[in-house]
Amino acid sequence: MFSKNNHLLEIYLKSKEKLIEKENLDENVIYNGLNNGSMVLLGNINHKNVEPLLIGQPAKIKINANIGTSPLICRIDEEMEKLKTAEECGADTYMDLSTGGDLDNIRKNMMAATNMPIGTVPIYSAAKKWQDMGKDIDSISMEYVFEEIENQAESGVDYMTIHTGLDMEAVEYANNKRLTGIVSRGGAIIAGYMIKNKKENPLLVDFERLLKIAKKYNVTLSLGDGLRPGSLKDAGDFAQNKEVLNLSKQVLKAREYGVQVMVEGPGHMMLNKISSQIKTMKDLIHNAPLYVLGPLVIDNGAGYDHISAAIGASIAVTAGADFLCYVTPAEHLTLPNKEDVYMGIKAFQIAAAAGEVALNRKDTVILQEKMSQARKDLDWEKMEKYAIDSKIVAERRKDFKDEKECAMCGKFCSMKAR
Amino acid sequence: MFSKNNHLLEIYLKSKEKLIEKENLDENVIYNGLNNGSMVLLGNINHKNVEPLLIGQPAKIKINANIGTSPLICRIDEEMEKLKTAEECGADTYMDLSTGGDLDNIRKNMMAATNMPIGTVPIYSAAKKWQDMGKDIDSISMEYVFEEIENQAESGVDYMTIHTGLDMEAVEYANNKRLTGIVSRGGAIIAGYMIKNKKENPLLVDFERLLKIAKKYNVTLSLGDGLRPGSLKDAGDFAQNKEVLNLSKQVLKAREYGVQVMVEGPGHMMLNKISSQIKTMKDLIHNAPLYVLGPLVIDNGAGYDHISAAIGASIAVTAGADFLCYVTPAEHLTLPNKEDVYMGIKAFQIAAAAGEVALNRKDTVILQEKMSQARKDLDWEKMEKYAIDSKIVAERRKDFKDEKECAMCGKFCSMKAR
Repeated sequence: MFSKNNHLLEIYLKSKEKLIEKENLDENVIYNGLNNGSMVLLGNINHKNVEPLLIGQPAKIKINANIGTSPLICRIDEEMEKLKTAEECGADTYMDLSTGGDLDNIRKNMMAATNMPIGTVPIYSAAKKWQDMGKDIDSISMEYVFEEIENQAESGVDYMTIHTGLDMEAVEYANNKRLTGIVSRGGAIIAGYMIKNKKENPLLVDFERLLKIAKKYNVTLSLGDGLRPGSLKDAGDFAQNKEVLNLSKQVLKAREYGVQVMVEGPGHMMLNKISSQIKTMKDLIHNAPLYVLGPLVIDNGAGYDHISAAIGASIAVTAGADFLCYVTPAEHLTLPNKEDVYMGIKAFQIAAAAGEVALNRKDTVILQEKMSQARKDLDWEKMEKYAIDSKIVAERRKDFKDEKECAMCGKFCSMKAR
Repeated sequence: MFSKNNHLLEIYLKSKEKLIEKENLDENVIYNGLNNGSMVLLGNINHKNVEPLLIGQPAKIKINANIGTSPLICRIDEEMEKLKTAEECGADTYMDLSTGGDLDNIRKNMMAATNMPIGTVPIYSAAKKWQDMGKDIDSISMEYVFEEIENQAESGVDYMTIHTGLDMEAVEYANNKRLTGIVSRGGAIIAGYMIKNKKENPLLVDFERLLKIAKKYNVTLSLGDGLRPGSLKDAGDFAQNKEVLNLSKQVLKAREYGVQVMVEGPGHMMLNKISSQIKTMKDLIHNAPLYVLGPLVIDNGAGYDHISAAIGASIAVTAGADFLCYVTPAEHLTLPNKEDVYMGIKAFQIAAAAGEVALNRKDTVILQEKMSQARKDLDWEKMEKYAIDSKIVAERRKDFKDEKECAMCGKFCSMKAR
């Protein structure tokens, strides 16, 4: 990769020391990971204030927070607060998925407010702007979409979800044979265009055009799962797997071109199938970093989909997932508020840690031991320090902070007893 | 089992029709499960208002809520409210673990307020009463403990956690080699007695005395995991497994005696080890119903241990766990309040459903399909109906209840698009 991508080399050399320290990995593990594409380093050359971020195991599991306005809820201040919340409680990246308001301006403000890498789904903003011009989404011009991608790349977006893997056969299958059809917003827009125009997916056909844009700015492509299953019934079907096969070829093409690439995964999936599906997918995508949404292990958990998705994500991590897109309690119901963002991040930090200890990642394992030693010692200061959420430990203890034991067992505390 | 336990036969015959309907199982599956001990039917002959409850796969996964005062927080009204909350949001049983106030009276009030089966850990109340007499717990009289067990059995308690599996070798190992020693309160009390008196565990030595009491009232024994690991570091160690070996023998003894028996499982456990540990345990305990607490998949999730435990529980269910003891957000920090009880139950309903769909249990699978069909149809009334928490679906939707789409995607809703 380095021989074909000078921007990457430059960013890598500039951030190398920090990466080594943060990831607690040998230099050559990082160098080789980036070079063979099993890792990516997020950082658009035009995103001046970005803190480059390494994604790909054995680097630490990263967590993304989706932020952004919707057509029904468009309060910019709230989105900025959500962004701040996400960063403060430990998100590694955010995606601006705004579809309401002045999109370019919203993104600009977000990028000024944080050093976290930003991701987008350019087809959202293209479709929104297209609709704002009074036009029907299915008639969207692909030229217009490519222009939006280029504009966003130039403006410094670090990674972009692009739905390059849908093809006509898979779309027809999804539309005709599935319980819940196409549930990816981007995927649905592309499929609408394809059906309306009786054309193959232009992002698949014209994949090289994307590569040129991505290469110019060191945008990392996140090949989208436009046909991810939206229900357990549809999990692992022909449409989903046909898309993965297309992405498999595109990963190699991107690498030949010197473009960093990740792949996005499902979706809804029974927990007993997660491990095999993720492993199969990692093989097919040539070990490129896998960016998963959940997966959600049930369909009817609305209100608690952060828990349903954390279950799936923890298992996915043990099978090779590298990058987790959080799911919040608002999923399937409404736009997340600040509290939802907080809960989503925390749930996914639990999932990431659970996966990492199962993979015997030393930093996470040692942290568990420190926490347990502090618990054995009834040392609440240290428990606060080592907990995933120090604030909540202090908060829940506040009425009894002078007690050595916690208020559940009191003097019957077994830690004290033995 | 039926030939040796007339009380069980009587309760079974009385509740048979209801059980068949509720569990959606053939009569002979239930009869054989109860007869061979892979299922238990909770119902003390003296618990007049109890609704007998079947536990043991393929019966539906059951969820227990721990309720009760502590030495530091002893507000009876609040406990009664927590009990009501637990029942309303779908708990199947509750354990009264009170260790503060007038214990016998608290239990009596709880039993009058609900038809759910009740579980207890009699050593807690024995120890509390012993301390109230101004005596040191380590000097507790085992005669006194047996009397408390008998009194509780007579008063109608349906199942009791009794720590019959600890032995001196395992206790010494746990005390000397572990990071977090003995974390079961009951286990710690028994171990204290054993060490102080240099005696083998009287509940193990005098197991038959327990069987006589249990048989008399059809109390289901829940053989406790007094040496369950309290940290990932201690998971799966000698002490834990030695205890399981003792329980293995006791399960057979109980069945010979005609006493219904469950076994309790860990504790803290890396997620990649849950499946094998649970399966090994189920073999050793001769397929008796397994009652698990979590397991928690990380040590440092305090404040979110309901999520950490739901991850572990969902996997445990797929490996054979039958009965889940909820873990609330208060775990490791304080006594749960009403909101914690609610969240704990919901998290475990997610876990149970995730496990059941992975096991292809038809009722749960069909429910997922109905939910997804409703989602595809944007039918919010049906989504409310099929969701694990109807109330929260309505609550989160209320500002946009006249919109057909949810407020996340609005007009970009992919369900509508394709």
